[in-house]
Amino acid sequence: MYVLHGTIRKRIETMRIRLKIDWKALTQLPGSKDLSSKKILILDSALRIISEKGLHQLSIAELSRESGISKPLILYHYPTLDSIIEELFFFSGKMARYFIEKNLNREASFETKVMQMIKSLFEWTLYNKEVSEFFILMFHSGTKNPQMQKILKEILQTAHDLWERIFLESMRYKSLEELRIHINGLQSMITGSLIIMISTNRTQDANDLLTEIRLNAEALLGVELPVFELN
Amino acid sequence: MYVLHGTIRKRIETMRIRLKIDWKALTQLPGSKDLSSKKILILDSALRIISEKGLHQLSIAELSRESGISKPLILYHYPTLDSIIEELFFFSGKMARYFIEKNLNREASFETKVMQMIKSLFEWTLYNKEVSEFFILMFHSGTKNPQMQKILKEILQTAHDLWERIFLESMRYKSLEELRIHINGLQSMITGSLIIMISTNRTQDANDLLTEIRLNAEALLGVELPVFELN
Repeated sequence: MYVLHGTIRKRIETMRIRLKIDWKALTQLPGSKDLSSKKILILDSALRIISEKGLHQLSIAELSRESGISKPLILYHYPTLDSIIEELFFFSGKMARYFIEKNLNREASFETKVMQMIKSLFEWTLYNKEVSEFFILMFHSGTKNPQMQKILKEILQTAHDLWERIFLESMRYKSLEELRIHINGLQSMITGSLIIMISTNRTQDANDLLTEIRLNAEALLGVELPVFELN
Repeated sequence: MYVLHGTIRKRIETMRIRLKIDWKALTQLPGSKDLSSKKILILDSALRIISEKGLHQLSIAELSRESGISKPLILYHYPTLDSIIEELFFFSGKMARYFIEKNLNREASFETKVMQMIKSLFEWTLYNKEVSEFFILMFHSGTKNPQMQKILKEILQTAHDLWERIFLESMRYKSLEELRIHINGLQSMITGSLIIMISTNRTQDANDLLTEIRLNAEALLGVELPVFELN
């Protein structure tokens, strides 16, 4: 009876996360792919295990316990653990993009859009701490696994493209070279700041870090940016 | 005979890395600690295993195979795997500092010292790729393990202090607030850029990335910086 109780409890907790991450919406995004409800449950459980116990604790047996799906059925959907991690990483990237684009007002000024992007990246990192931690791990996986590296490059390119659109729409750039340098500087600075924030557990100072990024971005871009606070 | 041959081969390769990393010099640094030759061999072997096979392959048995030291003797020096990883992380931080300080000319101008720091951080990352990859993993460990987080904070603080000295010596800062914002922006940007470079395997573009950092640092600090090429 205890085991059954444990399984039900885990199912409920898994559902809680399933409600938090809107997987169905993610499958609808351009360039995304369809996911069966079983696959969603597997990915969700994998994220939970990695987040709570670490990547080295992820196994088909553990996934079966966490999701309530039999081992053969998990292996039917995903033949290897690596294929699960890759799919999870692919959708984490989609999640981040979905969140950031949703918070971007296309009618706003250049300065406002820059701050909306920065604020969204901070809020995404804070609200999805377990996914952000997983992301840092994927930066490491990129050094070892060509498939993860490919997904990582795509995610960084997606963020780069979003920035590029904002920069191009502002009509203030004299050359594509200048634009690329500004975007890469901004993207590196924000990435580094968020990784340092998460890894040193400075999330309580997030508003101070956002202010620092704003002041530095002002110097980098030569503009005055509006003051934003995290929600 | 094959096993013996394998052991000798590994010993020789281990010695190669031992020559590359000057562990003895690291133990002499201020705030460092002493290391017996057995401990050096254990740490060196651990770094090799993590670098070649991944952190999840690190075990006392594997360490014993790699180093040629018996399991009981490894456990006598380091009672847990975590204590080995922590010590390795501690010394990786020392290594980086040693390398960077060695390349810093205290008599040079502010602009030259800024570029010497940036160039050293790039070269350190490129020349010690296995340690850099281990560092990214430690950023992830910081989110899980308070002891790793403590070491990570100390390493970031050490880098911050080095920057602070360079900035203070320049006598150009009106407030400590402004100084802190500039240092954090620069540190985030360089950290992010190096992590992206390593994880997406863009090491062949390192000189282009260095140029981007230089141009962005110029905007950030409001100075003109000298052109440096990586060795």
